[in-house]
Amino acid sequence: MDQTAPLLQKIVEAHTQLRANQPLVQCITNSVAANYVANVLLACGASPAMIDNPFEAENFTRISSALSINLGTPTTEQMQAMQISANTAQQASVPWVLDPVGYGNILSWRSEMTNELLQYQPSVIRGNASEMSGLAGNQVTGKGVDSTLDSAEVYIQAWTLLDHAECIAISGESDFILSKELNSVIQVNGGCFLQPRVTATGCALGALIAAYCAVTDVTIATLSAHVHFAVAGQLAYQTAQTVGSFNVAFLDALDSLTADQISEYANFSIIHR
Amino acid sequence: MDQTAPLLQKIVEAHTQLRANQPLVQCITNSVAANYVANVLLACGASPAMIDNPFEAENFTRISSALSINLGTPTTEQMQAMQISANTAQQASVPWVLDPVGYGNILSWRSEMTNELLQYQPSVIRGNASEMSGLAGNQVTGKGVDSTLDSAEVYIQAWTLLDHAECIAISGESDFILSKELNSVIQVNGGCFLQPRVTATGCALGALIAAYCAVTDVTIATLSAHVHFAVAGQLAYQTAQTVGSFNVAFLDALDSLTADQISEYANFSIIHR
Amino acid sequence: MDQTAPLLQKIVEAHTQLRANQPLVQCITNSVAANYVANVLLACGASPAMIDNPFEAENFTRISSALSINLGTPTTEQMQAMQISANTAQQASVPWVLDPVGYGNILSWRSEMTNELLQYQPSVIRGNASEMSGLAGNQVTGKGVDSTLDSAEVYIQAWTLLDHAECIAISGESDFILSKELNSVIQVNGGCFLQPRVTATGCALGALIAAYCAVTDVTIATLSAHVHFAVAGQLAYQTAQTVGSFNVAFLDALDSLTADQISEYANFSIIHR
Repeated sequence: MDQTAPLLQKIVEAHTQLRANQPLVQCITNSVAANYVANVLLACGASPAMIDNPFEAENFTRISSALSINLGTPTTEQMQAMQISANTAQQASVPWVLDPVGYGNILSWRSEMTNELLQYQPSVIRGNASEMSGLAGNQVTGKGVDSTLDSAEVYIQAWTLLDHAECIAISGESDFILSKELNSVIQVNGGCFLQPRVTATGCALGALIAAYCAVTDVTIATLSAHVHFAVAGQLAYQTAQTVGSFNVAFLDALDSLTADQISEYANFSIIHR
Repeated sequence: MDQTAPLLQKIVEAHTQLRANQPLVQCITNSVAANYVANVLLACGASPAMIDNPFEAENFTRISSALSINLGTPTTEQMQAMQISANTAQQASVPWVLDPVGYGNILSWRSEMTNELLQYQPSVIRGNASEMSGLAGNQVTGKGVDSTLDSAEVYIQAWTLLDHAECIAISGESDFILSKELNSVIQVNGGCFLQPRVTATGCALGALIAAYCAVTDVTIATLSAHVHFAVAGQLAYQTAQTVGSFNVAFLDALDSLTADQISEYANFSIIHR
Repeated sequence: MDQTAPLLQKIVEAHTQLRANQPLVQCITNSVAANYVANVLLACGASPAMIDNPFEAENFTRISSALSINLGTPTTEQMQAMQISANTAQQASVPWVLDPVGYGNILSWRSEMTNELLQYQPSVIRGNASEMSGLAGNQVTGKGVDSTLDSAEVYIQAWTLLDHAECIAISGESDFILSKELNSVIQVNGGCFLQPRVTATGCALGALIAAYCAVTDVTIATLSAHVHFAVAGQLAYQTAQTVGSFNVAFLDALDSLTADQISEYANFSIIHR
């Protein structure tokens, strides 16, 4: 029996729910990504709000349907807001996603904060292969915020990270989602080689996972966000092959994606442990 | 007699003046909107400068032709700059626009700052229906930074805000502009349902009001900015129907808008008190 | 003999190297430009990372192939990061570019910081005519962050700035590059009048100079970045004539630019002292 069919059904349902519910997603994100993340969430049907100061963080997390924390270009005030919001999210059972951009021994300030944030039990931790391998305890030399490793090679190392989160998602040419619930890995194919050549696509994916967490369970949410991105990337490339136009087409595809397109183009498989 | 005809004539003149004068507009705005606001102002013909630190705020406001203050994602340093610049603007008779993003009891830090800034008598206060209703003293539960109320239902509540500013502008499916000078409300129709699905369009509208304030009186400036946006949104939708392309077409339309297009598509009416 | 031919050959080689090496470029830039600068660098083939906090600046500059410092919207923490990274770059022989946005007597905080940063010997200082004239010691009244002077009129004034850097680049309708190595000025023509009507193009050019410095010598790097921009701007205008579409086409052209296009469209000349 095809084990992906029931998952695909749930992805389609989650996509419909996201559009219908327009969940409020608090994003504490970086200066490069802020505008783009907001536009991606709006295109996908969510309602983003970039509340990232420590004076309003607690109140705002309490009324949010999900929280996305991204460590791309942290400031001292944002760091304080991250701690408060992550703590509040755990207390108030608001699902939240941690994106430890640039994790590794070079960027120690954010890496120490990432380690601290783990205590608040993120629903999902997502990142590229270098970041996830580093977070799993390996010595990694990333290239700034871009990965020097292949997602297919490191996803096994990331099993230990399921102590900290329900899902671990590693993006790359193929994306790998480790699910505690399923005790399995889901490999998501598709997307487009141009996605990493547009800045902040990974950051936006993290926020989209959070948005989906507001309307479905964590594993389906993580999978749905990755499939949404992969199919939209594939469709966008059909209309645009250079980065400027591709990015416009990608936002268009995120917006106009239909249940039929998800069903037709979704490409993922389950790897049992 | 058609009371809108003389206003329309002044809108066309203001649009010409904006292009001709390229006024310098200081913007203290949020991290989501900064790039977009600058591009919108450039597209419309103004010269934006996002000087938002407290150490240069006073000097810069003095040489600016207008000031736009937006409370989307404030930092402590920006908050200080806002107070200094608003104070300076009042002293130096520089017109300024206040956009109290997210005003309400949940986001108390910015709301208290908004209340403080009112003492410096903004030329215009603009926002969505939830924000303006909250500012007028009503208990409002906004959805983050998006409105949960309809502009047509709340504009009457906003009359009391004319104690603080010469114009109050409430954006929504129709926009409502309350003018102290005219002792009337102007309802602006048009635009496109996709505008709120592109982030920071409201923030950019606030900055554009400020830009117009540099070249005409406050009521005409507020009206001109809303008409500029509404007509450009309508024209953009004729060429693009999904959010990515729409946003590109919107910037194109803001840029290429002609006097003839304003005259043909402007759609507003006067509601006497 | 045509003196530009050997330079053109080196520009083409540098362009190939940039694509092949994808150098890591640390950018400390402004809130308006952050997203755009990252996308421009990615489109051109470099790997940007906006590490702009003082706690990670030293470590990160050490592993970067180049550094770009831009004073558009500085915060106190960014100012600290700028000093640390500039100092580290000098010590570790990492080439770095200084873009003193808004330099002048009105914006004194950043101007004093710019003066301090000169001690760390930037490889290149770039800016518009007002900024470069001001930095060379003239009394200049800029219009915010836009120039009120013509690059052709002020480039001679900038000779003294070669005490502080190997190259001085002044952008405008024509760009002028002063090279200590060549003891000459190179005038770069081309580009498009729409480039200054898209925000942060100048900021992105500064970061692109840094990226090229990672793969070739400073004079060729500065020239290559300007030619890359000028040719891409010219090609973009062939497909789009309003600012929104132009910006998309410009990113496309930055991405798809070929050696043949560089050879065909590059337009520069040498002005001996």
